[in-house]
Amino acid sequence: MQKDAKKSLNVVDAKAVELEPLGPFAASKRVHLEDGDVRVPFREVSVCAGQETFRVYDTTGPHFESRSAAELAAGLPKLREDWVNARIARDGENRTQMAYARRGEITAEMRFVALRENMSPEFVRDEIACGRAILPNNMKHPESEPMVIGKNFLVKVNANIGNSLVTSSIAEEVDKLRWSLKWGADTVMDLSTGKNIHETREWIIRNSPVPIGTVPIYQALEKVKGKAEDLNIDVFLETLIEQAEQGVDYFTIHAGVLLRYIPLTRTRTTGIVSRGGSIMAKWCLHHHKENFLYTEFERICEIMKRYDVAFSLGDGLRPGSIADANDRAQFAELETLGELTDIAWKHDIQVMIEGPGHVPMHKIKENVDLQMKICKEAPFYTLGPLVTDIAPGYDHITSAIGAAMIGWFGTAMLCYVTPKEHLGLPNRQDVRDGVVAYKIAAHAADLAKGHPGAQARDNALSKARFEFRWEDQFNLSLDPDKAREFHDETLPAPGAKGAHFCSMCGPQFCSMKITQDLAAYANERGLSEEEAIAKGLDERAGAFREAGGAIYANEASASAEEE
Amino acid sequence: MQKDAKKSLNVVDAKAVELEPLGPFAASKRVHLEDGDVRVPFREVSVCAGQETFRVYDTTGPHFESRSAAELAAGLPKLREDWVNARIARDGENRTQMAYARRGEITAEMRFVALRENMSPEFVRDEIACGRAILPNNMKHPESEPMVIGKNFLVKVNANIGNSLVTSSIAEEVDKLRWSLKWGADTVMDLSTGKNIHETREWIIRNSPVPIGTVPIYQALEKVKGKAEDLNIDVFLETLIEQAEQGVDYFTIHAGVLLRYIPLTRTRTTGIVSRGGSIMAKWCLHHHKENFLYTEFERICEIMKRYDVAFSLGDGLRPGSIADANDRAQFAELETLGELTDIAWKHDIQVMIEGPGHVPMHKIKENVDLQMKICKEAPFYTLGPLVTDIAPGYDHITSAIGAAMIGWFGTAMLCYVTPKEHLGLPNRQDVRDGVVAYKIAAHAADLAKGHPGAQARDNALSKARFEFRWEDQFNLSLDPDKAREFHDETLPAPGAKGAHFCSMCGPQFCSMKITQDLAAYANERGLSEEEAIAKGLDERAGAFREAGGAIYANEASASAEEE
Repeated sequence: MQKDAKKSLNVVDAKAVELEPLGPFAASKRVHLEDGDVRVPFREVSVCAGQETFRVYDTTGPHFESRSAAELAAGLPKLREDWVNARIARDGENRTQMAYARRGEITAEMRFVALRENMSPEFVRDEIACGRAILPNNMKHPESEPMVIGKNFLVKVNANIGNSLVTSSIAEEVDKLRWSLKWGADTVMDLSTGKNIHETREWIIRNSPVPIGTVPIYQALEKVKGKAEDLNIDVFLETLIEQAEQGVDYFTIHAGVLLRYIPLTRTRTTGIVSRGGSIMAKWCLHHHKENFLYTEFERICEIMKRYDVAFSLGDGLRPGSIADANDRAQFAELETLGELTDIAWKHDIQVMIEGPGHVPMHKIKENVDLQMKICKEAPFYTLGPLVTDIAPGYDHITSAIGAAMIGWFGTAMLCYVTPKEHLGLPNRQDVRDGVVAYKIAAHAADLAKGHPGAQARDNALSKARFEFRWEDQFNLSLDPDKAREFHDETLPAPGAKGAHFCSMCGPQFCSMKITQDLAAYANERGLSEEEAIAKGLDERAGAFREAGGAIYANEASASAEEE
Repeated sequence: MQKDAKKSLNVVDAKAVELEPLGPFAASKRVHLEDGDVRVPFREVSVCAGQETFRVYDTTGPHFESRSAAELAAGLPKLREDWVNARIARDGENRTQMAYARRGEITAEMRFVALRENMSPEFVRDEIACGRAILPNNMKHPESEPMVIGKNFLVKVNANIGNSLVTSSIAEEVDKLRWSLKWGADTVMDLSTGKNIHETREWIIRNSPVPIGTVPIYQALEKVKGKAEDLNIDVFLETLIEQAEQGVDYFTIHAGVLLRYIPLTRTRTTGIVSRGGSIMAKWCLHHHKENFLYTEFERICEIMKRYDVAFSLGDGLRPGSIADANDRAQFAELETLGELTDIAWKHDIQVMIEGPGHVPMHKIKENVDLQMKICKEAPFYTLGPLVTDIAPGYDHITSAIGAAMIGWFGTAMLCYVTPKEHLGLPNRQDVRDGVVAYKIAAHAADLAKGHPGAQARDNALSKARFEFRWEDQFNLSLDPDKAREFHDETLPAPGAKGAHFCSMCGPQFCSMKITQDLAAYANERGLSEEEAIAKGLDERAGAFREAGGAIYANEASASAEEE
């Protein structure tokens, strides 16, 4: 495979993809948790003396380092190669992670994600066996680090990259991959539709430590020169094999867009807004035949199974506006996706289900409840949803609102939306804004679900904030660079990082220290809280006066919050 | 009053506050709806021929025009002066909007907001009479346009401005007022704690067409040279009168921070994060006495009533971190706010109740339910809440998530949070980002509540999007300037505004037009949807082929959404 990769990677000018170092986060170092042959990378954030260091899982691979064109062309180390080869050496069994799980076997990949998520390997296996979680890592993508997606694990974030005919080069896309990883993307989809579609994908996969998803119908359409009516199952299967051989980890396949559902979209405000959905609708109408992705689904399964590529069953009829949310077309397709889930599971193929789109808040939960029921808890993977249509330029926000809520309700992975949505192809800054907005949504969902350990980071950061440990507050945050930059806009002097105030309120108002004093008082005397209330306050009032009442001389942060 | 204002306004160098025109929104003009002597301003957005124009209510007053220092010093026209004078001419009745409402009288202010919100004046009156809505417009702020705040009206957004000792000038604050209004703030709070606190407020009030709120304890603290223990009810009442005379429309008063609640905060992660709350806690502890704002609440009421200033009962013990959400301290204070609501209502004084803060998603609804019950549906006015602590630099997003949800659950007004929260004083760009994020949250809440007419803007914008009317899509959005700028980054040519694609997907992939064709087909033949499914598709397949299948030659927008 490496030989093929090399060949592909030489197609474009190698110099064009030389990448500068990303600029590592301050006070962070890469560490590993180990379990035998499994080594799971984390980023360890060091904080002030006396505080515990904090670890977050890390999907960047070696991308914080400088990467020469030669290194990029060689691709990442093949972490999973030995594991895969050992399994291939055995007889002709079904080698999907789901098949192993159902046979009771715990793979190295399962042990990897168990360590990363602080769960037991048995739990991981059982979740995959019953279809409630997937571990989408194509055997032909040995560079990838295992990633588990399921409602009982941390909520994941996908970032979309990819060029279009109008803009973007391979170098830009590899840089966007790396940039997505810096900010915390868990998987990346290459949605390229422009030139060099095969080569772009090859560069991305060979350099991706996270699972890569694609929408194969895009390339199939290129192969028939853009004429949807010329598509057929053979060109599609050929494309699937080509991409599976490259190592794509999950495929979006719009097999639920049935001929009889298409008229249900005719009274919609925004019709069909899925590219894949519209391509298949066009094919169906032209031939007045049923969608060949549906009728030939078993043949597709045979290929998926051979490589252990996971299905991401596409929602080609998802709503593209508030007006179209939760309509008959959308839910009719969902029924078919449930039917297809059963077929895939019969082959022990891993499945997740894609979801909307544009949905007002009060209609979000119904989406999850129906999906859980119809698709028997196969992981839900949603795009936002955007909770209003009226803010182009801010759709990372309109959609982060819906994403946080749908994550709370049980969605396993959130597909990011950037500020450029509806307006243009995202650039580097848009990717950063989109990923961070979605890391916020995913983490908010983990908190609301009561995911074990999720609140530890909030607690660590808030403790740092309360104790005026500015550097720790920055370093523990999702985007330390931004937090530091904002703080330093008004107080750039190094001394301000030790100050008990910031520019919001200035050095005269404060709010936080009093509680520390009160707690110290009660603790010193071994009083219960009630006693402290009943007895201590008289004494306290005296002590407080003696201490000069100086505890408000310093200043906390938070303008709006501190009114 | 104008004489006093002039005097104040001369304190600072007038040249410093000369303001350039704001830059009006494209395709927009100011229009008025009229009902006798009441004229309500709207911004009318013109769209392509054949489409209906769209109106949004407009709070900017004359601020889109250039404002000379002399004009700013003279203040805005006194819209409400005659209404107020006519009522003053009558005998010594209680002149709060609540008192009129309870006596069955519909004021001009009520007719104004009825027109603005498309409700009947009787409904407005009844909501104010029962305390479920407030109309905070001090009789001494005749420049203000009436604004109604209540759960059965559109969700409102407040923007905080104000200087601190460390940064900001009067000119900057007047500019931030104007800038907040451009992006759609419904009320503005002046939280200044720095120099020229009286003069800054005077410039803001005289030039504000929206209600202005303050936290009077800040200025009272300045009067006692920053020593909280030297505060007393006399200096506080003197400050209230000073600010009420200037025309402040609502006061945040932290009368619920009782002595016995303070120890409940001692085990918190972030203690007391409200500035007003911590000032009162300090006073209580120093003297070991009950909060004088609580014990002297009736005397405060006498002043509020005289000017018709509304209470915004402050939540001085709100949580400042996820760890502290919904704790005993917070809910104990809420009980007291309920008690104070009854006292204020006894005087026919309008009341709203402030709320958190930092709350994970699953604990948000409890806040609203309890507030509604304890405070008998007095309007809730919340800060966010932030649904996680881990994203300083992005807290407009972490809090817009919570704000949208709490708005849906019944909160009447959302206090914005800017990206600079926890890090520094917001600048112009931060104000814009904060207000737009909160307009999104408020509108999402209106949609989810099923507020009459709320979806009309989504429908109009989505229809424009579906029909590739790019300019209309921009002009109907919350921030037309940003939408246009993002689009033009990749396709700046004027011709691209008529194109059936953007840079996301390029000109080869498309999704939307097919639905239009299908609808046209069914409509022409007068078929029902079911007939179209059963009968039409055969015919359609032929017609589709004859038409050359060219309907996908053009291209829609939406990269992520169009996979």
